[in-house]
Order: sequence, then structure tokens, then C-alpha cells
Amino acid sequence: MRKIAAMEDFFSDEHRRQIEETAKKVGFTVDFYPRDTLTPGRETEYEVFYGFPPMDLLKKAENLKWYCCSFAGVDRFLSDDIYPHPDVMLTNSSGAYGITISEHIIMVTLMLLRGMPEFTESVRHRRWHDPIPMRSICGSTITVLGAGDIGTHFARRAKAMGAKLIRGVRRTAKAGDPCYDEMYTFDRLDEILPKTEILVMALPSTPDTVGILSRERIALLPKEAIVVNVGRGTAIDQEALIEALNNERIAGAALDVMVPEPLPEDHPLWDAKNLLITPHISGNMSLGITRDLDVAMFCEDLENYAAGRPLKRLVNRKIGY
Amino acid sequence: MRKIAAMEDFFSDEHRRQIEETAKKVGFTVDFYPRDTLTPGRETEYEVFYGFPPMDLLKKAENLKWYCCSFAGVDRFLSDDIYPHPDVMLTNSSGAYGITISEHIIMVTLMLLRGMPEFTESVRHRRWHDPIPMRSICGSTITVLGAGDIGTHFARRAKAMGAKLIRGVRRTAKAGDPCYDEMYTFDRLDEILPKTEILVMALPSTPDTVGILSRERIALLPKEAIVVNVGRGTAIDQEALIEALNNERIAGAALDVMVPEPLPEDHPLWDAKNLLITPHISGNMSLGITRDLDVAMFCEDLENYAAGRPLKRLVNRKIGY
Repeated sequence: MRKIAAMEDFFSDEHRRQIEETAKKVGFTVDFYPRDTLTPGRETEYEVFYGFPPMDLLKKAENLKWYCCSFAGVDRFLSDDIYPHPDVMLTNSSGAYGITISEHIIMVTLMLLRGMPEFTESVRHRRWHDPIPMRSICGSTITVLGAGDIGTHFARRAKAMGAKLIRGVRRTAKAGDPCYDEMYTFDRLDEILPKTEILVMALPSTPDTVGILSRERIALLPKEAIVVNVGRGTAIDQEALIEALNNERIAGAALDVMVPEPLPEDHPLWDAKNLLITPHISGNMSLGITRDLDVAMFCEDLENYAAGRPLKRLVNRKIGY
Repeated sequence: MRKIAAMEDFFSDEHRRQIEETAKKVGFTVDFYPRDTLTPGRETEYEVFYGFPPMDLLKKAENLKWYCCSFAGVDRFLSDDIYPHPDVMLTNSSGAYGITISEHIIMVTLMLLRGMPEFTESVRHRRWHDPIPMRSICGSTITVLGAGDIGTHFARRAKAMGAKLIRGVRRTAKAGDPCYDEMYTFDRLDEILPKTEILVMALPSTPDTVGILSRERIALLPKEAIVVNVGRGTAIDQEALIEALNNERIAGAALDVMVPEPLPEDHPLWDAKNLLITPHISGNMSLGITRDLDVAMFCEDLENYAAGRPLKRLVNRKIGY
């Protein structure tokens, strides 16, 4: 019998049932393990991994053909060296996080535009606070750097909230979702940064994206710009960002991802002005919809896999997503 | 010459120009004063007030025919006693606040659903925080109590973000905006509260709405419910709300309005569990769009007034909006 190891903590009984039924239909059985767990010695029994396997046993799983990662950012799983052989196919769960991460982006964007950090501090001291200047998503000019599933979910919501102009920026010149007013490729980023009020970064970590928001590019942003990053911390020159915030060269930033994570207690990011830090929780799996989508997407690709069809979320390990 | 006194602090040069041009076109001149200011003795010169007049001079403005209030909540301006004669027409600026207040509602709703108060507290101590359970506007069941301009702006955005079911509740049985899945009148509120995950209150203060979210009705809400109030603090039995929050009978609340304002330092609201307080800033005039709309609506009604047409935002002082 062909076998699947599913290694995740978030599965409900309904999720297990759904995975088992799909597996049965296409001739597989499933063993469930907690996240990052597998009985040593049994790794060679499996043709398919789903979830998050222990890295040492991933390397030894010599019969593995397909690893379906339960999250979207697979930068840790790109190198051939971590697999028993280079032909193992990697898929990710890109598509499961659009809802939760776009809600995070909307929330932190509004918090920055509406002065919430200042109000929160005042409320903490039981002090009433006078109104302070506020801005709106309505009428704003937005650049979405990384116009994939997450960026596009945000762009659709921002459009519905009345954004004036939304520009998408991606690696390749493909037509964008209709919610984008204009689409650009990475090489034209310098043209649009000076016209950006809200810069949303939702990029995977790849050779193309590491350091993409460089010191020089931060300098191109207008004084009223805010920067929101939900992709990977490596995309930003953090030192330059901290300087820009502390000198009020830009209006604010919200980082859900940074380098390193967790952030050490003495890191200068904690003290940067108008910076909203969240501990990499924008896409966390505690949201039911995300879990449901994650499982549904695995089941969909399991049927593709069994039928010999292309996997829908196959990662090109050379380009990184 | 017929005269207008415009008493507000937020006017830009462009706003003044716009008001003056409209006035000129319909045979009026305009005197500009700061908010809550008017030269004593000159109050009798004016046929129209726009903005926020000193209450004592409002009473003495014996030639006043129309007062256009620059905000939406006119509970302070309902009584005949404050006017020189009962025929003074009152209009409000309902319609100028939908954008800014709906963005506030989206923001605080997401903050409550996504555990932001807990993350904020952790970040303040420079501590990385593990993921905590989160919920989403997507798939949620929402009741909008007060389905006017503000409530409807919110409902449209919530719909675009994937809310499953949005119920509007209003005083009279009128057809609602298409963003509402169902419309109810106040007398059927008890039916829908038990099925409400997100209760948004955007009500004017009127005899119908004072205390509408009573102790008995708070008890009807399910454990996972959150309550967001942006209308008037009088709509809620605050003592019962504090108890429900502290006993975790409901999941959270966000109050931008409360009784009294400003909230005294020793008030128990400051300490209520899972309560997000903001100091009545959801609709503040610092947002450019709100100011622009406020002025545009006054100019529109000034043309109506001069032509003898009905005023578009005339308040029925008996029902309170």
C-alpha cells in the first residue's frame, strides 16, 4: 500500500477524515503524527509527506516522491541537500493564507494611518487623548510588492475600501488580477516608490527578493509612506529602515517578519519610531479558514498526484516559489 | 445681503473658496469664525449657521432660519429650548463620516478578532509571543445596529472581506443597501442577538436608542460575540457590559463612545477585560476626505435652501436624526 505521513498539529477530526477519505479514494493510507515528528526508521515507508517533517528524517526518506509543505514560505526547503534525492517534488500551501494575512495587512495599515499606537499608549495610562491627524485607505496610492495570492487578497480589500490607485509589482510580466490598476516588474520598482503612500511587501525569500527594499530604495519613498512587510524579513535593509523611521524620513512601518526571529530583547527594532511589530503571526494556523484551505489544497493535489497530473502548487526550487 | 456664519477650525483655503463661491452664486455672503466662536452682538445678522456655534449666541440669533451642524451626532441640538424660535431647521453632516468611521470599525474588529491587545502588550515588554487563536471577518455573522450611512459603509467593507451574513437593524422597515443579507427593525433585535458574532452599533442618541443594548440583551449574545460601538455611549448598559467582559460572557468590545467622556481616571471601564477603548476619535475631522465631504454637503444644501427646495440632511428633531 502506498503511504502518506501527515505531520501537523492543527488537524481537526473532520480534517483527518477528509485526508483519509481522499487518500483511500486514490489508493493511499495515511499515518498521522504531530508536527515535526515521525517514528525514526519508518521514514522510508512513505511516498508522500504532508505538513512539517523532522529535517533529519526528511533527508533519510529514500522513497519520498512528494513533500507538501503546510505553509506558504518554503525558503527552508529549497536546497537539494535536505532531500534524499533531488527529484522530490515540493509543493507549498500558497493560497491558504490570503484571507488571514490580508486581514492582518488591512489592520496594521489602518493602525498606522489612524495613529493607534499613540492612542493605545494614552489609554494604557488612562488618559483621554485629543484627536490626532489621520489618513485613510480610501483615496490612497498603494504599491503591492509581491502580487501573488496574499498581495492580491489585500489589494482586493483595499480596492473595496476605496484606494485610489493600486500598483502590483511582480517578478515576471504577467497580467494581474483586475483589482490592480497597473502592473510592473521588479526592475521598474524605482519608478513607482516615490509615488507610493502604502507599500505592502508580500514576497517569498528568493535570490531576487533578498534586500529588495534597499537603503537606496527606502530613500526613494515619500515622507508620508508607510511600509508593511508580511513576507520575509530578508527583503528589507533593516538598518536603513530603522534610520528612516527614527529620522521620520517615512511615516511608519509594520513588520510581521524580521531578522532574526524571535527578535532578541536588545535589538534596535524594538525602539524604532512609529514601528508596529508583530511576532510573525499574520498567517498563523489558528484561523479555521486557513486550516480548512490548507487541508483542501493538499487533498486536491493528492488527487492530481495519484492521477499523474501536474501538482497545482509545485514549487520551482530554483526560483524559490 | 443675506448672511452665513461658518464656525469651524478645519477649513482649508480651498474649503473657504468653495463655501464663498457657492454662497455668492445664491446671493449670500459668508463670515468665517473659529469653532465655538462668534462676535457677540453680531449673531442676529445671520440667517444661516454652519459648523459649531457658541450655545449662548445660538439662542440669541433671532434671525436664524437654518443651522447646519458640521457633525453627524446632533443629540445636543434637538431641544427647541436652545434655539431662538422652534422653526429653526437643523441639518447634520450625516454622510461625511462613513469612510473614516467604517475604517475605524474594520480596524478595531480585526484587532479584537486577531488578539492584537495581547500582542501589543507583549511587544511593549520586548517579548516574542507565540501564536494565539484568531478569527476572521471572512465567514463571520455580523449585526449592524443602526443601518445608516456609517453602518452601511462598514457593512459594504465587511461584505467585500467575505462576511458570511450581515444583518442590518434600523428603526423603520425600509429596504436596506444591497450589502445587507437581511433587514430587521429594532423590535426584532432579540431574535438575532443570539446569532451574532460581531455586533456593530452606529446609532444616534434618541429616545429609541438609549439603553438599547440592555443587560438582558447583552445576556442574549453568544460567548464568542464582540461588540463595537461608534454611535453614542448611552446606547449600552455599561455596567452590564463591564460585567460581561470581566466574566468572559462575551469575547470582547471596542468602545469609541462611552459615558462619560472624557472617561475619568478611576472609571472601571479602563480595567475591563478584552476592552479596546479609543477616545471618541473614530470620526474625527482630521481626515481630509471627511472635511471635504462635510463642506461639499453644506454647499449642496445651501443651494437647496436658497432655491426653496427641501434640505437633504434635515434632522427630525422629534426622532433625533
